[in-house]
Parts: sequence; structure tokens; C-alpha cells
Amino acid sequence: FVSVASRVSGFGRMLWDMGANDPRKVIHCVKVGLALALVSLFYYTRPLYDGVGGAAMWAVMTVVVIFEFTVGGCLYKGVNRAIATLTAGVLAIGVHWIASKSGDTAEPIIRSASVFILASAATFSRFIPTIKSRFDYGITIFILTFSLVAVSGYRVDKLIQLAEQRLSTIAIGIAICFLVAILVFPVWAGDDLHLLTVRNMDKLADSLEGCVDEYFNKDQAVNEKEVSSQKLQGYKCVLNSKASEDSLANLAQWEPAHGRFNFRHPYSQYTKIGAAMRYCAYCVEALNGCINSDIQVPEALKEHLSDACLRVSSECSKVLKDCGSSIKSMQRSRIIDFLVGEMKDAVQELHDTLKRPSATAPFMEALPVITTASLLIEITAR
Amino acid sequence: FVSVASRVSGFGRMLWDMGANDPRKVIHCVKVGLALALVSLFYYTRPLYDGVGGAAMWAVMTVVVIFEFTVGGCLYKGVNRAIATLTAGVLAIGVHWIASKSGDTAEPIIRSASVFILASAATFSRFIPTIKSRFDYGITIFILTFSLVAVSGYRVDKLIQLAEQRLSTIAIGIAICFLVAILVFPVWAGDDLHLLTVRNMDKLADSLEGCVDEYFNKDQAVNEKEVSSQKLQGYKCVLNSKASEDSLANLAQWEPAHGRFNFRHPYSQYTKIGAAMRYCAYCVEALNGCINSDIQVPEALKEHLSDACLRVSSECSKVLKDCGSSIKSMQRSRIIDFLVGEMKDAVQELHDTLKRPSATAPFMEALPVITTASLLIEITAR
Repeated sequence: FVSVASRVSGFGRMLWDMGANDPRKVIHCVKVGLALALVSLFYYTRPLYDGVGGAAMWAVMTVVVIFEFTVGGCLYKGVNRAIATLTAGVLAIGVHWIASKSGDTAEPIIRSASVFILASAATFSRFIPTIKSRFDYGITIFILTFSLVAVSGYRVDKLIQLAEQRLSTIAIGIAICFLVAILVFPVWAGDDLHLLTVRNMDKLADSLEGCVDEYFNKDQAVNEKEVSSQKLQGYKCVLNSKASEDSLANLAQWEPAHGRFNFRHPYSQYTKIGAAMRYCAYCVEALNGCINSDIQVPEALKEHLSDACLRVSSECSKVLKDCGSSIKSMQRSRIIDFLVGEMKDAVQELHDTLKRPSATAPFMEALPVITTASLLIEITAR
Repeated sequence: FVSVASRVSGFGRMLWDMGANDPRKVIHCVKVGLALALVSLFYYTRPLYDGVGGAAMWAVMTVVVIFEFTVGGCLYKGVNRAIATLTAGVLAIGVHWIASKSGDTAEPIIRSASVFILASAATFSRFIPTIKSRFDYGITIFILTFSLVAVSGYRVDKLIQLAEQRLSTIAIGIAICFLVAILVFPVWAGDDLHLLTVRNMDKLADSLEGCVDEYFNKDQAVNEKEVSSQKLQGYKCVLNSKASEDSLANLAQWEPAHGRFNFRHPYSQYTKIGAAMRYCAYCVEALNGCINSDIQVPEALKEHLSDACLRVSSECSKVLKDCGSSIKSMQRSRIIDFLVGEMKDAVQELHDTLKRPSATAPFMEALPVITTASLLIEITAR
């Protein structure tokens, strides 16, 4: 019994921590509740309920399905749903008109055949990557609306009125979602993407520097080491953030202008920067593997290379940090050229040191790669 | 006008290629059409339509929303939808009973408050990672059903009958989906995952071998080089397949026993193997970076190391290929121990060669990492 109680309290603490770490999540939950409460007003107030004629159900459904964490996600789903419902409705009413003119035997065949063909074609179009990334949700709704309207036309008499009602209630649902998402503590996918990129760049710089530092200063205190090893793992975040970057960049494209972001903010640049950073992170991973490998270099050699290597890594992480802060402030940094120059000098110095007493340098190789990659970042960062 | 025609024909060819490359996609589209046509029978046949009392709409919706490419995806959504509808329906009827007993003023307040609280709580639970990966869809449906039933209870009289009808039509929709998905050319997520892992392992072996080969034989014919450079890019697939591996492993857990896969097939092992392969791919990426870097080693040194390096890379890729084929046949390979021993010998030889004329080895470092990583793979592969 005690173990159950401790488990429950542990679970409760986990939930509390989750809320405390990112209060936006809690706010999101309250927003969902708020949007649903707003939409249920259509049931409670007589004039509103009569106005939509009992189709208020669709407004509730729209709110539940559309409401997403970011404004971009909400707009993406809302716009998709609106366009898909409209086009599918118009098409289905056309099919309905043709089917109802043809005799009793042909009618169900025409209806089913049209549903079969259109649903298959729409499903096939989902496999095309560009359509998949932008209109996936819209196609589901297109199939749904078309089948519902085309098939139920067989039994329901006032089809056009039904379609009209459905459209207007969906519009109401979408409007409520947009208002709540944008006006009440909005979470912008663009902001998230921006922050993620800046944070990842800082983490990468920290772990690059920490990795090389650790290798050369084995004699530091243990607790200091633990702090740095946590920092050192930062590059793993960079490795795993591809999926979230892609989806954020995709959603951010739907967002209107807000804050420092214009409507046509170049979000695709962020994914390019992300790819360059991931490239750096691969190198850090390989570097890390070498440092922890069994083959150890003689101490004298290590001593010999230590200064040059430390300088390269610290210059390199300075460049990365400057890139990060220039992305953060969205201004071209004035000292970046100077820093890149310094880094190139440091790399040159390392080359020279290497040539003198021809030596096995167990991590030498990764650095020029990082250099070129960070140059690449510098170029992409406007 | 000509450019439009050529664009359209190009688009048509792309679609045709897509279908020809993976006929399962075309079959999937036909299956969606088939399931919808089956469900529309409920509208056309009088006894069936009267049986579900006009709620056939829900069956159509269920089919459209649930039908997924893989059997696992279909089962995941179907089971989620069924459980969520059932629990939310029972809860909502409880709330409806309480609300209808309390006076006219309190009724809407109780209904809205319950929707607000439950929707917020359910939305919050979506942020918990384990629930997110397994029951995300179920929670959406839970919120949807609960709000619909609890709120519409204010206007609709025969609420229990409504809930019953909805439940039975959803059950019909789910049953049709399962039957079509499993009986007509099923696409198993488990099979896909298995194939993806085997294919990635082969690609990794090819690109590792190709990479080292290219470095040492710069004088080969150009067209041969192009073939190998295409092979060489194979590791990039490994780098980018994390997301699809995770989702396939997640869906595969829902699948029943089929073919050589039991119900509790250890699908999570595949993600572990995938992680180990990605670790190898990082090394190949770094290796590739060094090989294409500016600093070139003197030819004599290259000559000196060439044999040992080539042997290590070929042994290593042999081990990877053997792992791949043993995963494919699901049997422990008998020669794997021998191959790993060979590989270790080759690495030892490379060490010896390196020690003799203390030399800068620009890719030496990556090999021990690959060795340990592939050992890791060997262990995970039963």
C-alpha cells in the first residue's frame, strides 16, 4: 500500500514539475477548456441554438479537433478544414444532383462509384511529399465531407440546407479557435523554432568546448566534471531535434506577422541552419567517441598539442555562440568576421604544431570539418 | 502553353513512378475506396439503415478517420477510438444524470464546468510522453465524445439512445476497417520495420566500405566512382530514419501475430539496433568529412596504411552484412563470432602498423568506434 501511495505522489510530482517547467502547457489546457465552454454557449442560449438548427454539434467537433498547441498548428488545421469542407461540399452536391436525376437503380451505383474514385484519388495524393506536409489534414476532411454529403443524400431530403448548416457551424468553430488561440497567451511556432535554434547553437558550443577541455584537464575536481559532462551531452539534443524543427518550420509558415516575425519570414532557413548544426554535432559525437576510446596517446604528445587544440575549440565555440546571439537578435554581428579570422588562425596554428613532431592526433581531424561547417552556418545566418 | 503541358506530363509521370515503385500505395487507395463503399451499404439497404436509425453517418466518419496505411496504425486508432468513446460516453451520461437532477440555473453551469475540467485534464495528460505515444488519438476522441454527449444532453431528450446508436455505428465502422485492413493485402508495420532495419544495415556496410575504398583508389574510372558515390550516400538514409523507425515500432506493438512475428515480438529491440546504427552512421559521416577535407596526407604514408585500413573496413562491413542477414532470417548467425574475431584482428593489425612509423592517420580514429558499435549491434541482434 505504501508503495502505491509513493508511486501516486511521484506521479503527481512529475505532473507538477511538467507544469512548472513549461507554464504554457497549463495555459494551453485552460485554453482548450475555454474554447469548449464558449462553443457550448450555442447549446444553452435559445436564439443561437435555433439559428444553427441543431447542427451545433459540428462546432464542438471542430473546436476539439482543430485546437493545437501552437497558433501555426491551429491555423493550419483551421484553414485546411475550411477549404476542404467547402470544395468537398460543392463537389458532393454536384454528384448528388446528377445522381438524383438518374433512375432508381443507377442512383446508388453513381454515388458509391464517385465516393470510391474520389476517396482513392485523394488518398493517393497524400503520398506526394509536398501535399503530405501541407494539406494532409485537409485531405482527410475532404474525403470525410464528400462521403458524408454524397452518400447521405440518398436518405436526407434537404441536403443543401444540411450542407449550409454544417459549413456555418464549422466556420463558427474555427473562428472561436482562432480567437482563443491568438488572443489568449498565444504560443507561436515561429518563436519556438527561433528559440530552439538559438538554444541548440549554445548547447553545441558548450559541448564542443567541454569535450576538448575534459580531454586535456583530466585532473580537475570530480564534481566540476559532472557539471561539464551534463553540458557535454548538449549535442545529443541537436542530433534529435530534426523532427521537431521540421514540424515547427512547417507550422510557422501558416502564421501571420507577429512580433519581430514578418508574414514571409524565411523559416526554411532555420531548417538549413539546423542541418548544418546537426552536421557539427555528428563531428562532436565522433570526437567524443575518440576521446573515450581505449587507445591513449602518450602524455608528452598530449601536452604538446594541448594549447593549440584548446585554442581551436574555444575559438570555434566563440564563433558558434556569436552566431547564436546574432540569430537571437536577428542582426548581423559586427565581430563575427573577426572571430572567424581568429578561428582560422587557431586552426593554422594547430596545423603547424602538428607538422613539427609528426604525431598521431586523435581528434585533430574533426576540427577542420567543424570549422567549415560553422563557416557554413555563418553564411546561412544572413 | 507547352511548358504547362510538359509540367502536367512530368507530374503524371511522377505519380506513375510513385505507384510503380510501391504498388502497396495503390492497393491502399483502393482499400480506402472499398471500405467506404462497404460502409455506404448502410444507407442503401432499408433494413440496415433502419437498424442504426440514421446514425450511419458515424460509421462513415469512423472509416475515413481510422483507416491507415499499416494494420498497426488501423488497430491503434480503432482500439483507441472504441475505448475512448465507451469511457467518455459512460462518464458523460453520469454527468448528464447529475445535471438533469439539479435546477434550471445550475444545469448549464454543471455541464460546462465538467467539460472545462475534463477537457483541460485530458489535454494536460497528452503532454506525458508515454501517453502521447500510445493514446494521443484516444484522448482527442475522449474529449470529443464527452463534450458532445454532456453538452447536447441539454437539448436532446433521448440521450441514452443517442449514445447507444453512436457506439454501435462506431463499432460497425471499426469492424469494417479491421476486416478490410487485415484481409485485403495487409501492410504490416512490423514487416516494414524489419525490412527497414535490414536495408539500413546493408546500406551502412556499403557506404563504410565505399568510403574507405574511394579514399585509397583515387585512380579508378569515373563512372565506377559515380556508382560508388551513390552507394556512399547510403548512410544518410540511416541518419534520417529515426522518426519513421520510432513510429513503426510504436504501431507494430498493436499488431496481432502474423507470419514469423509473434504477438509480443520485441519491437523495441529494433529501435535499439537503429540507435546503434545511427551511431555508426555518425562516424561514417565524420570519416567522410575528413576524407574530403583539405589537409592531405603524403602519398607514402597513405600507401603504408592502405592495406590495413582496407582490411579493417572490409571486415567491418562483412560483420554488418552478416548482422543484417541474421536479422533478416531471424536466426543467430553461426559465423558471426568468427567474423568479429577477424575484425578485431584487423583492427589490431592497423594499430601495429600505426605504431611503427608514428604517423598522422586522418581516419584511424573512427574505426575503433565503429568496431565497438558493431559489437553492440551484434549483442542486440540476439
